[in-house]
Amino acid sequence: MFTIVAERINCTRKAIREATENRDAAFITEQARLQAAAVSNEGLNGYIDVNAGAHPDTELDNMLWLLDVMRKAMPLPISLDSPSPKVLQAGLEALDGRPAMINSISLEEGKAEKLLPLVKQYNTAVIGLCLGSEGMPNSAEERLDFAGRIITLTRAAGVPDDKVFIDPLVRCVAAENEQGAEFLKAIGLIKDKYPTVHFCAGLSNVSYGLPQRTLLNRAFLSLSIWQGLDGAIIDPLDKGVMAALYATRVVAGLDEYCMEYMTAAREGLFE
Amino acid sequence: MFTIVAERINCTRKAIREATENRDAAFITEQARLQAAAVSNEGLNGYIDVNAGAHPDTELDNMLWLLDVMRKAMPLPISLDSPSPKVLQAGLEALDGRPAMINSISLEEGKAEKLLPLVKQYNTAVIGLCLGSEGMPNSAEERLDFAGRIITLTRAAGVPDDKVFIDPLVRCVAAENEQGAEFLKAIGLIKDKYPTVHFCAGLSNVSYGLPQRTLLNRAFLSLSIWQGLDGAIIDPLDKGVMAALYATRVVAGLDEYCMEYMTAAREGLFE
Repeated sequence: MFTIVAERINCTRKAIREATENRDAAFITEQARLQAAAVSNEGLNGYIDVNAGAHPDTELDNMLWLLDVMRKAMPLPISLDSPSPKVLQAGLEALDGRPAMINSISLEEGKAEKLLPLVKQYNTAVIGLCLGSEGMPNSAEERLDFAGRIITLTRAAGVPDDKVFIDPLVRCVAAENEQGAEFLKAIGLIKDKYPTVHFCAGLSNVSYGLPQRTLLNRAFLSLSIWQGLDGAIIDPLDKGVMAALYATRVVAGLDEYCMEYMTAAREGLFE
Repeated sequence: MFTIVAERINCTRKAIREATENRDAAFITEQARLQAAAVSNEGLNGYIDVNAGAHPDTELDNMLWLLDVMRKAMPLPISLDSPSPKVLQAGLEALDGRPAMINSISLEEGKAEKLLPLVKQYNTAVIGLCLGSEGMPNSAEERLDFAGRIITLTRAAGVPDDKVFIDPLVRCVAAENEQGAEFLKAIGLIKDKYPTVHFCAGLSNVSYGLPQRTLLNRAFLSLSIWQGLDGAIIDPLDKGVMAALYATRVVAGLDEYCMEYMTAAREGLFE
């Protein structure tokens, strides 16, 4: 199983922000449905993410409107991307029992402590981002250390390991060449030490500042899957990225009888 | 450095066979030049491969004609793909000192023993294919064992390790799901035990029998490079495969300052 958190409904993107401000339910419905269709395949575990923007004045209203539209648009679990306990709690209430994910907690001062009670109360999944008040991890070992501290907190809050999705934090290789390899090694280290914890990483930062980013994102997704990554925050309408996902699972021996790949190919998901 | 053996000039392909039979020097010249241009980039070590067909009556004549055309067409080293010591010797003589590779020796009965004297005499590189009279290897460990036996032979013949390019033998995943992963693990095992030996593998068999093979070949190349593969037999005019090669080297931390990738992108090699 590979978990995809589908990232398109994000108010930091202009088209989504405008549709949200204009309460254009048809547009959001289409975005939700297209993404849901793309992740509703054998072998995939899909969440549709929603980010309602960073303005404290409008985030709550936008989130509730977006969730109302998304709930009616498709049946999949929803991932709530907000730093605000208030917005998250209102959103989880509005979801009325639909499976959900909180995106995300980290080690930044007090952040996890505020959000973990919601994870427990609403029995959600949660992304644990390897980021702390002291900054970003550099080496694979630092990422393992950050992940361990997050898992200590989730366990203390009574969250089972298999609801926890670690994001080992991707940094761009244009600035520091070794950051891709350190991230990849971290996946193996974390998987070895916490075998029932999952991963869910945003990968596209790896290519920041470089041309033809999707080529780099595809290759990085492939290597990450080989290292043990079993979830990612991606745009499931990017056919190149989805093709890399299915194809990598075949050659890495993760797609029994190649059935997921062959089904996706037959459905035209790669072109 | 990544070694590419450019595979297009192969008389088992219809267009090449016809051009060879018709002594169409313009066509072969173009194929040689296009491939040479595609592999003449920073970070690449290119050979242009030639296979003159399997007919004992015509292979020698075809090989000598092809080599004559290729030598005039471009300045790169040439890889000679033949099982015949006679054809190889005549070809190496005709190359008149140009750096060359023999493609390939294996553990099939007596094959390496006949060809290794030529490797030594002409100071060529050589591909060592993990294949024996007893058949093909299954597991990663069997591939390591085959590689070790090949390296014992090359060392006994006085061939330095850095002239030896091991092909751990790709098998199709459609028949046996785990064959991709076993190949990938073998790269790591062989690299750990023989750090100065290189690799040069034909990868495309991995996707035999499956749709949209280039997607699988790209992903498999990416994983192989991460595992330590530093050479492959590929079609350098397949822009998707070349893009995967350059992009993977960036995210794996093998392309310092991303210069090879950025140069290739600027030259339009990816589209």
